[in-house]
Amino acid sequence: MSKRDFLSTADLGRSELDDLLDLAARAKGKRPGQVLGGKTLGLLFFQPSLRTRVSFEVAMVQLGGHCINLSSDDLYELEPRDQAVMDGPAEEHVKDAARTLSRYVDALGIRSAQRAGSWDRERQELLLRSYAKYASVPVINLETSFEHPCQALADVMTMRENLVTLKGRRLTLLWCNHPEPKSLGPTHSILQMAALMGMNVTLAHPLGFEVDQDVLDRSKKLAQDAGGSVQVQNDMDTAARGAEVLYARSWGCTKYWEDAEREAMVKRSLQGWRVDEKLMATTDNALLMHPLPVRRNVVATDAVLDGPRSVIYDQAANRTHVQKALLMQLLK
Amino acid sequence: MSKRDFLSTADLGRSELDDLLDLAARAKGKRPGQVLGGKTLGLLFFQPSLRTRVSFEVAMVQLGGHCINLSSDDLYELEPRDQAVMDGPAEEHVKDAARTLSRYVDALGIRSAQRAGSWDRERQELLLRSYAKYASVPVINLETSFEHPCQALADVMTMRENLVTLKGRRLTLLWCNHPEPKSLGPTHSILQMAALMGMNVTLAHPLGFEVDQDVLDRSKKLAQDAGGSVQVQNDMDTAARGAEVLYARSWGCTKYWEDAEREAMVKRSLQGWRVDEKLMATTDNALLMHPLPVRRNVVATDAVLDGPRSVIYDQAANRTHVQKALLMQLLK
Amino acid sequence: MSKRDFLSTADLGRSELDDLLDLAARAKGKRPGQVLGGKTLGLLFFQPSLRTRVSFEVAMVQLGGHCINLSSDDLYELEPRDQAVMDGPAEEHVKDAARTLSRYVDALGIRSAQRAGSWDRERQELLLRSYAKYASVPVINLETSFEHPCQALADVMTMRENLVTLKGRRLTLLWCNHPEPKSLGPTHSILQMAALMGMNVTLAHPLGFEVDQDVLDRSKKLAQDAGGSVQVQNDMDTAARGAEVLYARSWGCTKYWEDAEREAMVKRSLQGWRVDEKLMATTDNALLMHPLPVRRNVVATDAVLDGPRSVIYDQAANRTHVQKALLMQLLK
Repeated sequence: MSKRDFLSTADLGRSELDDLLDLAARAKGKRPGQVLGGKTLGLLFFQPSLRTRVSFEVAMVQLGGHCINLSSDDLYELEPRDQAVMDGPAEEHVKDAARTLSRYVDALGIRSAQRAGSWDRERQELLLRSYAKYASVPVINLETSFEHPCQALADVMTMRENLVTLKGRRLTLLWCNHPEPKSLGPTHSILQMAALMGMNVTLAHPLGFEVDQDVLDRSKKLAQDAGGSVQVQNDMDTAARGAEVLYARSWGCTKYWEDAEREAMVKRSLQGWRVDEKLMATTDNALLMHPLPVRRNVVATDAVLDGPRSVIYDQAANRTHVQKALLMQLLK
Repeated sequence: MSKRDFLSTADLGRSELDDLLDLAARAKGKRPGQVLGGKTLGLLFFQPSLRTRVSFEVAMVQLGGHCINLSSDDLYELEPRDQAVMDGPAEEHVKDAARTLSRYVDALGIRSAQRAGSWDRERQELLLRSYAKYASVPVINLETSFEHPCQALADVMTMRENLVTLKGRRLTLLWCNHPEPKSLGPTHSILQMAALMGMNVTLAHPLGFEVDQDVLDRSKKLAQDAGGSVQVQNDMDTAARGAEVLYARSWGCTKYWEDAEREAMVKRSLQGWRVDEKLMATTDNALLMHPLPVRRNVVATDAVLDGPRSVIYDQAANRTHVQKALLMQLLK
Repeated sequence: MSKRDFLSTADLGRSELDDLLDLAARAKGKRPGQVLGGKTLGLLFFQPSLRTRVSFEVAMVQLGGHCINLSSDDLYELEPRDQAVMDGPAEEHVKDAARTLSRYVDALGIRSAQRAGSWDRERQELLLRSYAKYASVPVINLETSFEHPCQALADVMTMRENLVTLKGRRLTLLWCNHPEPKSLGPTHSILQMAALMGMNVTLAHPLGFEVDQDVLDRSKKLAQDAGGSVQVQNDMDTAARGAEVLYARSWGCTKYWEDAEREAMVKRSLQGWRVDEKLMATTDNALLMHPLPVRRNVVATDAVLDGPRSVIYDQAANRTHVQKALLMQLLK
């Protein structure tokens, strides 16, 4: 079976990741031409998207291909459960949508980051995994609550552009306050990919905002194998001190995954978890990263987001380049 | 006047249909190249769509052309009635939308399968016919409650691929249970097109789910001229017995077209109208067809939909190929 | 700084306008080929659109480029205010959206004609101006409540096709009744552009429907410099008499900008402000223009809209051609 999906950072080993980043760097330097002429990528968005949508569409267009965008507004409800007796609201089974789309397009991207009950259920990525199971063309994860591997690719590319080598470099992944519960996808993905690159990662968050245990365990193992480390820190100031990269991002509380009000209550005392110039001054002249969209002056201040060490737009721009490399590898 | 629409199966005579199917088979075997380079097809969806939307967009892209997709969300309300004093909610007349779009695109596709009052009104396909009347470019019916001719083209192509010749073959169009009232479009279109091909068609449904009388009369006449037949059967088991093709699909009750609750009540006793392995075993090793989306384990069981005689995904895939042929004939 | 926006009719001097119209005429006569191959135009629609959306997409496709369309449905809420503490509903700042999109696409078009408080606030075009401020690629105004310069380009092109020279020709811009308060964009833009061309413009409306004072003052100045004139007339019949072009269009009352009900009440006695054959007969065989969508038999009767002097579809069609010229100038 030749089908190859990109659902998780775990789908890439270290040498494959290096190859992909090298290809992305070459594609950024010089457009590869119409290498995907006549190919189509179907994108299904079950949540709003700016960067993912536009960066994939631009990537395909510049490679000579074409994107077909479907949002949940264009579609009826889909049933993900096997053997369901479909007498409810769902008009079509994911099985049939995936198999049908596989006859039309050359690859499928799925964004499905909506809350779906408890964290135990959420972490199974049911809708994405169901598409991947039934599609006969490559399926790309455009973000779930559990992983956002395309973002992590762009993040690693951006760090390599600035730091050249990543092994042993000090990256702090910093939880920040936010008015709403957020996906853990970007955090989980950069945590694992930075570990794979052998970085020394400090994962910093208030008590109660632990990431998924399996992801943390896997990251520690990956880091160890690659000569780096992963440690958890619950004090913001300690975590930021000496960092070479400060990666800000909020994420939701998995324990209260179904109870947004309780999370909001907990966060009332956490408004100090925010990146400002004072915090940046304690780092080792760190790069400031964030996957966007960012709540300005809540997650981080205007001064640091617009400051000289911010690479937030490079992260966004590099989405196009890493995705070109990914699409070339999956579709050529 | 050179404009040619494709609004109904009646727009194609037998030899034109044969030509179109031959062209579709060639286009499936080998991509025709950029024969529609620079051409644009405007698609207007007043209901959700997966297959129609993606199969047309892929067809245009692979022929070098481009689709512009508009949904009712992108638009304000449109007025279809001539001479209307437009002081109500409608912001633009269909006349003006159709004439304007005709100055931009090379062809227009319209999906308008929403219930619009009584069956007598519905069967007039007011919105589609209004676009066709005022557009100066070819208009394609992407499904109304009355006809879905593009689906029927793909169905006939799929039957030809499997049965080689269709004349005299036994096709059973089987009404199935469904939680909602459905369009009669796919049924009306395949009924007439199968009749045109000289098949021996059994139209099977419970009492009360009669198709449109004019469509039935026309089908009988077409079948007679082509050496086939059309008969109605109200017993499911009798209808399935000996069939070479079993085409499952639900459709709504035209008598209670404005009363979905009454239809639902009637259907409570009709849950046995469902395709399963037992029913399939009584056929002459029939192909199982359905135009999708399908309510699994309501309309037909997983076992038969995923079984060896199911060609439901071929039907969907062939949409692209018949539509390529159609677009080449209308636009080249 | 090489970035060039097209936000307002004021962005074009007379000789630039002449050049652009000449280029549009050539592009209409013969397609310029794939001069924008590989280029992408991002279109953001915060209101429904038919003509703007399709005419831009067709223009890009025929020039070898590509449009990426985003509507407010595809996006979360955006924050336009600088220094905002973003703990409300807005998920992203316009600054970040504009800067990110600038890394993906080659130009941006923004439609933002939604009411945003008082007229004093509305006329500042906050959302559009915020995109233009932060984007590093050219930004095109796809209509605000204050200006619709792309429509005016098409209007002037249409008048030139019919009248050959515009200097000294008598254009009446006629307010018409309409069930809803409408944008002043098309009126402001054609008023200023016709003045720039040296036409003799009569701006006709009931008392209370004055256009923006700054726009009127600027128009008078432009007309004077170009050998034309701008006068205001509150009597419909006097305004229409002897006109060579009658340009019908409703617009909202700026004084009651936040009070649609009060405007509706005022308009009850203004239903006579409507173009019909009787009014047309008093003109100098005037062309009838309207930017569409038009409320038939409210703003103007079917007889005149479908009559021999109506050029409403030419105006719409010319959108593609002027926009091709604009895109070539901004992007080549």
